[in-house]
Amino acid sequence: MREFILKASKAFTKMFRLNDLPGAGRMDLVCRCVTNALWLSHALRRDIIFHAALEGPDRPPKILSFDGEKLVGVSLDERNIASNICIALEKGYNLRSNEEIELPSRIKIAKKSFEQLVKEKSKTTQLFYLHPKGKDIRKVEFTQNVCFILGDHLGLPSATEKLLKRFNVQKISLGKIEYLASNCVAICNYELDRILELS
Amino acid sequence: MREFILKASKAFTKMFRLNDLPGAGRMDLVCRCVTNALWLSHALRRDIIFHAALEGPDRPPKILSFDGEKLVGVSLDERNIASNICIALEKGYNLRSNEEIELPSRIKIAKKSFEQLVKEKSKTTQLFYLHPKGKDIRKVEFTQNVCFILGDHLGLPSATEKLLKRFNVQKISLGKIEYLASNCVAICNYELDRILELS
Repeated sequence: MREFILKASKAFTKMFRLNDLPGAGRMDLVCRCVTNALWLSHALRRDIIFHAALEGPDRPPKILSFDGEKLVGVSLDERNIASNICIALEKGYNLRSNEEIELPSRIKIAKKSFEQLVKEKSKTTQLFYLHPKGKDIRKVEFTQNVCFILGDHLGLPSATEKLLKRFNVQKISLGKIEYLASNCVAICNYELDRILELS
Repeated sequence: MREFILKASKAFTKMFRLNDLPGAGRMDLVCRCVTNALWLSHALRRDIIFHAALEGPDRPPKILSFDGEKLVGVSLDERNIASNICIALEKGYNLRSNEEIELPSRIKIAKKSFEQLVKEKSKTTQLFYLHPKGKDIRKVEFTQNVCFILGDHLGLPSATEKLLKRFNVQKISLGKIEYLASNCVAICNYELDRILELS
């Protein structure tokens, strides 16, 4: 299983206007990451789960999970993904701690924090986060279950970096250039695909 | 200089509804390619030009060109890029053959065909197109001026493949998986960035 966790520090946890995704705490960035994580040409990636940890107003924290094997009726354009997120946020608005519901689209929404999710994943999964000073992704030995942690346009704050260190999350690098979070997702997928093709 | 040409065989050449980009001949796909070609985290790529050859109704063909060095006032979300494309299509609606105008955003629109553009580029630029049976991108020797040609969700028809062969366009491959056109753009950029970092 391959997973991604995006820490979307400003992304709204209430309903938002579909005509202004950047204004909803950079929901456009969240949607692009979902697209690049899950879609191939004419197919969904069945072996990937993408989690977005939304930390913006006004009911944080929320975790949205998109499982490529289950997703139904969601298209890959920003507006369609955003409309599905909006429905999830509406239905999950009043969730209590650790409650989770699944929508007809099979998107899950949980009242859970980024920290909790990382802690859970650390028990079963090889965790990585992208950092310019990390180990070159082409030199990393990946196991079967991997999870990549990404920051949004604001990056990962130092408190989060300390937390990741505590859970032994490894730093990896895509080179010297700082790519869009959504393109980091696309590139991680691509690098792992190349490794799997060789094996 | 690094360039991309997307053959968007159904993309509208008239104004369209911003709330339905997929319905405008997959304008969402065009917008995602623009984003992935030109944007880094917090910066535009100054050395890249992205061309979209729009061939849908009702005034084809049109070439839209986005130069990363010149672009102003355009954001990277699908809706914003689409709104700028819409303005360009309105202003350029009645262009005559080979006429070109530049918008305040510095996006250019020309009444020109995909074939004409490929022919022009073939004189000065190393041309590639993505094909599962092409040479592995990691084994290609790139020169200074490269241009990648991509198809949309319908791929490149055989007549276009014959045309590309006539202009000695080389087939290259990203592996066995067929990625979204927009992710092909992101991956080509990444592979070339890695080569440049080593040189």
